[in-house]
Amino acid sequence: MTDKKASHKSSVASGQVSRRRQPLRIALFGFGTVGSSVARILAESKPEGLELTHIFNRGVARKRVNWVPAGVTWSEDAEAVLRSDADVIVELAGGLDPAGTWVRRALEAGKSVVTANKKLIAYHGVELERLAAEKGGHLKYGAAVAGGIPVIPGLEQGLAGDRITRMEGILNGTCNFILSKMEGGADYAPVLAEAQAKGYAEADPTEDVGGLDARAKLAILMRLAMRVVVDPDEITPKPITAVGAVDFSYARDLSCTIRQVARAEESDGVVAATVGPMLVDLRSPLAWSRGTENMVILTGHYGGDVVFSGHGAGGHPTAVAVVSDLLALAHGSRRVEIPSVPAKIGAEFELPHYIRFLVKDRPGIVAEITGALAREAINIRAIVQKPGYPAAALPFVVTVEPCKSSALKRALTEIGKMDCLLEQPLDLQMLE
Amino acid sequence: MTDKKASHKSSVASGQVSRRRQPLRIALFGFGTVGSSVARILAESKPEGLELTHIFNRGVARKRVNWVPAGVTWSEDAEAVLRSDADVIVELAGGLDPAGTWVRRALEAGKSVVTANKKLIAYHGVELERLAAEKGGHLKYGAAVAGGIPVIPGLEQGLAGDRITRMEGILNGTCNFILSKMEGGADYAPVLAEAQAKGYAEADPTEDVGGLDARAKLAILMRLAMRVVVDPDEITPKPITAVGAVDFSYARDLSCTIRQVARAEESDGVVAATVGPMLVDLRSPLAWSRGTENMVILTGHYGGDVVFSGHGAGGHPTAVAVVSDLLALAHGSRRVEIPSVPAKIGAEFELPHYIRFLVKDRPGIVAEITGALAREAINIRAIVQKPGYPAAALPFVVTVEPCKSSALKRALTEIGKMDCLLEQPLDLQMLE
Repeated sequence: MTDKKASHKSSVASGQVSRRRQPLRIALFGFGTVGSSVARILAESKPEGLELTHIFNRGVARKRVNWVPAGVTWSEDAEAVLRSDADVIVELAGGLDPAGTWVRRALEAGKSVVTANKKLIAYHGVELERLAAEKGGHLKYGAAVAGGIPVIPGLEQGLAGDRITRMEGILNGTCNFILSKMEGGADYAPVLAEAQAKGYAEADPTEDVGGLDARAKLAILMRLAMRVVVDPDEITPKPITAVGAVDFSYARDLSCTIRQVARAEESDGVVAATVGPMLVDLRSPLAWSRGTENMVILTGHYGGDVVFSGHGAGGHPTAVAVVSDLLALAHGSRRVEIPSVPAKIGAEFELPHYIRFLVKDRPGIVAEITGALAREAINIRAIVQKPGYPAAALPFVVTVEPCKSSALKRALTEIGKMDCLLEQPLDLQMLE
Repeated sequence: MTDKKASHKSSVASGQVSRRRQPLRIALFGFGTVGSSVARILAESKPEGLELTHIFNRGVARKRVNWVPAGVTWSEDAEAVLRSDADVIVELAGGLDPAGTWVRRALEAGKSVVTANKKLIAYHGVELERLAAEKGGHLKYGAAVAGGIPVIPGLEQGLAGDRITRMEGILNGTCNFILSKMEGGADYAPVLAEAQAKGYAEADPTEDVGGLDARAKLAILMRLAMRVVVDPDEITPKPITAVGAVDFSYARDLSCTIRQVARAEESDGVVAATVGPMLVDLRSPLAWSRGTENMVILTGHYGGDVVFSGHGAGGHPTAVAVVSDLLALAHGSRRVEIPSVPAKIGAEFELPHYIRFLVKDRPGIVAEITGALAREAINIRAIVQKPGYPAAALPFVVTVEPCKSSALKRALTEIGKMDCLLEQPLDLQMLE
């Protein structure tokens, strides 16, 4: 056992896969949807150089399946698997703990780690990469963002020569499913229930609809694309829950629809980032993505726009990313280490906005609102009020020309004090 | 000099970029649009680990620019640069010769090669990769297909774990520029002239409009995606020149437009490939790409559809791919060697077709055409004849349900003998 392992290690280090005699020994941590898909692909495709040796799961007895090769060790003892002769730990448990502990333990032992854990990478990626480099292992996380879409390899390998100045992503399939169904006329609550029934949304959907999932993924992409180390908590997400059927109706009149977008932009060396529902032009690629699809648009200083889209989640697409990372390890492919620096992240953008008010109608409302906007030197683009709503709860929309987020926030704080408002105004950035 | 080089070699071989003391010494072969963009990015971004040392071009005196660092050797002596201490040759001359000779010489000397030369890689990629592996160098060609879009790194690094069963690509920017302009109402000849004036098309546009450029790129992608070694000459391309304004008019009535598509499909272990103008649904991603944009849609057995789009050509986007390949080399990133096998490539698809006839009208034409189709058991979907065309040169369209390409070819050979035809029928596959 010791000899086999030593021979693998030295051959990986020299990058000479063709002369490696022993396959990479793989331990799966987690045998849920993604874990069983990884095992399935390994069993069916038998890729050269990869051997599944261990499967760890709590209560592993109920997980056993007969199509996994007989030689695989099933275990519910994480420590034992971490001490085993596996070369790579595939961490699919998710969350910060105990997944983080397992990953650290594996890296400290000089093993490599492949993970789909966006939260762990978003919060601790830099530290874990440093640990891997110190101990001679490798950390790969191509599955952590946009599952089956090779955005991370694309950034690391194909776009490393560019400087990415803007990034717009649909990174949460649950929100995209809900919003694209609402675009078709459905209401939020039944669509959320449908998403939960289909397994697209958790019983507690806060991480998804609140934007926490998307901001973790945005933080990971920002490090690779914009080379800034970002604390995800510095990005304030806006939940999609405030968006209603009325907003889709108004959006359509503006030749737009609504998507949850994670967005980052560099301008004069300052990076700003935000996550939330936004109006996107119906002709924009962001409007094309439907259902649980993900999409990422990267704007390079030299190469212009590059669009990636596909299935961002689900067992098989995510498992493809995991197996691809394993193959890269087995073939001695190394990460292109993109240098990144810690950065304060702003929230100041200069974009047009859609602002929807819900008021108890009385004379003078528009004058007061437009007055508050004018005091911040914000130009109005359009005021739209569709017929058919009751005066006691009247929704209407003001769109404004590109303005600083901070100026609009001040104006909306003023407007928010008006007695006629039935709820705080809904303010959405408009992407053109 | 010798010491420096030796130290670089051993460190690249061990994959330990962080401990490498000497940057990768880079010789550019070709200082045209792409070559000068590469030099520009290196001069502006100063990526760690890369040093431009040589520029080779014929008549190099007229190429000299003052923003290239003074230490760079300008040369018109290819042999001297090949014998120099450069670690990597960046081949941007294009074509099979003398580019192929330079690449072979460099690889034989143990140097690495980065190239954007689709023709060389399509026809000799397998042999050159073998040579590189034998001599300890590396061959990278991320810029050879779809320039600024990281399709090749995406396939090698992010999708290696999947089995790609279908591929549809808009791989030639010139054709896409021409066809998307024709979609807007322009005629072929003036649009071609515009493309030539803008530098998108060569004086002799045959390689582009005839489909030879796209089929070379298709062959490269087929090796990486479908793991088959393809002789590009086995793929018979259809030129876009037969498509006229009338076809865009009929296509629109069918909720379609026309694009040059390179397409490959695996079914029951048999791979078929084709390149030519095709009808694409207006709701399909292929219809979204306009101007010189490129797009690739890969369908994975496990991961489903992944779409890549962006700028496929041009100095800066292509240069981004070249610099990214150089960074990957400097960081010790190795290709994931995807095993491929030689394969006979078929041309048998089972798709619906659009067939446009141009006839001198007389009674009985439709009966004869539909009779010939019926004898091959081909079902008609629609017969469309728009008003406003003269009976002496009357275009009309028949669309048919999915049928084997070979059966339709036999029927069209029969139909082609009809005396009323003013030209051979235009037969386009319809993608749904």
